[in-house]
Amino acid sequence: MKVVITFCVILTSFSLASAQSPEQELEALGIELFTPPKPIANYVKAVRTGNLVFLAGHGPGKADGTNIKGRLGDDLTIEQGYEAARVAAIAMLSSLKAEIGDLGKVTRIVKVTGMVNSTPDFYDQPKVINGCSDLLVEIFGEKGKHARAAVGMASLPSNIAVEIEMIVEVIP
Amino acid sequence: MKVVITFCVILTSFSLASAQSPEQELEALGIELFTPPKPIANYVKAVRTGNLVFLAGHGPGKADGTNIKGRLGDDLTIEQGYEAARVAAIAMLSSLKAEIGDLGKVTRIVKVTGMVNSTPDFYDQPKVINGCSDLLVEIFGEKGKHARAAVGMASLPSNIAVEIEMIVEVIP
Amino acid sequence: MKVVITFCVILTSFSLASAQSPEQELEALGIELFTPPKPIANYVKAVRTGNLVFLAGHGPGKADGTNIKGRLGDDLTIEQGYEAARVAAIAMLSSLKAEIGDLGKVTRIVKVTGMVNSTPDFYDQPKVINGCSDLLVEIFGEKGKHARAAVGMASLPSNIAVEIEMIVEVIP
Repeated sequence: MKVVITFCVILTSFSLASAQSPEQELEALGIELFTPPKPIANYVKAVRTGNLVFLAGHGPGKADGTNIKGRLGDDLTIEQGYEAARVAAIAMLSSLKAEIGDLGKVTRIVKVTGMVNSTPDFYDQPKVINGCSDLLVEIFGEKGKHARAAVGMASLPSNIAVEIEMIVEVIP
Repeated sequence: MKVVITFCVILTSFSLASAQSPEQELEALGIELFTPPKPIANYVKAVRTGNLVFLAGHGPGKADGTNIKGRLGDDLTIEQGYEAARVAAIAMLSSLKAEIGDLGKVTRIVKVTGMVNSTPDFYDQPKVINGCSDLLVEIFGEKGKHARAAVGMASLPSNIAVEIEMIVEVIP
Repeated sequence: MKVVITFCVILTSFSLASAQSPEQELEALGIELFTPPKPIANYVKAVRTGNLVFLAGHGPGKADGTNIKGRLGDDLTIEQGYEAARVAAIAMLSSLKAEIGDLGKVTRIVKVTGMVNSTPDFYDQPKVINGCSDLLVEIFGEKGKHARAAVGMASLPSNIAVEIEMIVEVIP
């Protein structure tokens, strides 16, 4: 009996050790979320309806207010695009945390739409949007695996490199 | 007792005065909704699932069947684009009213995706889509504030200036 | 009494005859669904949340792994684009069946977003995406009628002709 209990305690510890909170995962990666800037128009960064949160299209905006700009296939490499998509994911997670308070409430990243500022002959949108997808899975594990679209846009606001939106399922 | 009742009546009147129905707000703005033209293909203008209504992509089509056409950055100014987005919003509200009967059932505009017919060097999609966002907030107040994406498209059907879709939460 | 029962049996038979299952409709059209290839990145082909299934953006990928490539307005005709949209619909139905097991569980195709690889002067995206919409209505009848957007993209991954995503309502 004692052995069984001890074994269970050990199992639970392992399980806890491997299941850090999203906030702890972010900290381990050295990523700091920030207070999202208020939109300067009649829209908001996130709307919750039932147990879904719809995030606005987010650019690769950093905490200091700067953005990663440029077009893939022209003035940005795939690696720079990947980094831009990762920065956009951090911006989305910042808006999501501002909306729901605790990223531990996320039960599933449902859908990501990754829109890449592209020349007509740039065909590697998936490699760019992986910068967002990879971070989501680093933070949320299996819950972070989402349905995705990755497509090329003629142009984006202020010539930002990517604009990404997502739909997230949270606990009721 | 009489004083309390009178006070309540006054309060209620104020509250009613400041909370006009969406239909009254539209009338005050001189906007007339219209019967949406039937799509000529195997799709519809709106689908309700649970308490969400998904609107099809709507162009800037007017009651008389004409459309605002042209590309931003080339043959249309930002002001003309703003007007096109406002006209697309009126078309969407027409389809929404046809679907749910009474715009007073709207509890939240959840998401707007604003797709702007753009040259590669046009970067002001948000200023264009404000034409839709501003009208939604004029009509629905705080309930009209939505998550939004505003992006540049290589081309749109019949060379229309914008195509906008939205997701709306309605009472169950 | 006997007459009534017989009449009911006849009615039921007629009703069954005209309401084939989606799988039977597919077979009648000579369409075979296939096991969708595993995405090679941190995303999945479909995510279910509540009674909605969000499908990833699907290209015109066939069972043999090949894709229909090219740009509308340049190296593909509208007919070829229509065929590409139909192939993308088959790919989506394959992913949907893999997710929910039985297409008879579909209660409504809610939304289709059809993104067409387009030159700036190609304006017939709706005629292309009809290839998807027509098949959905062939398979699901009235339940297959969806809200839709059809738009022109600057470029798509691997230069595929179309990328289409959809949202489907299924039985709880």
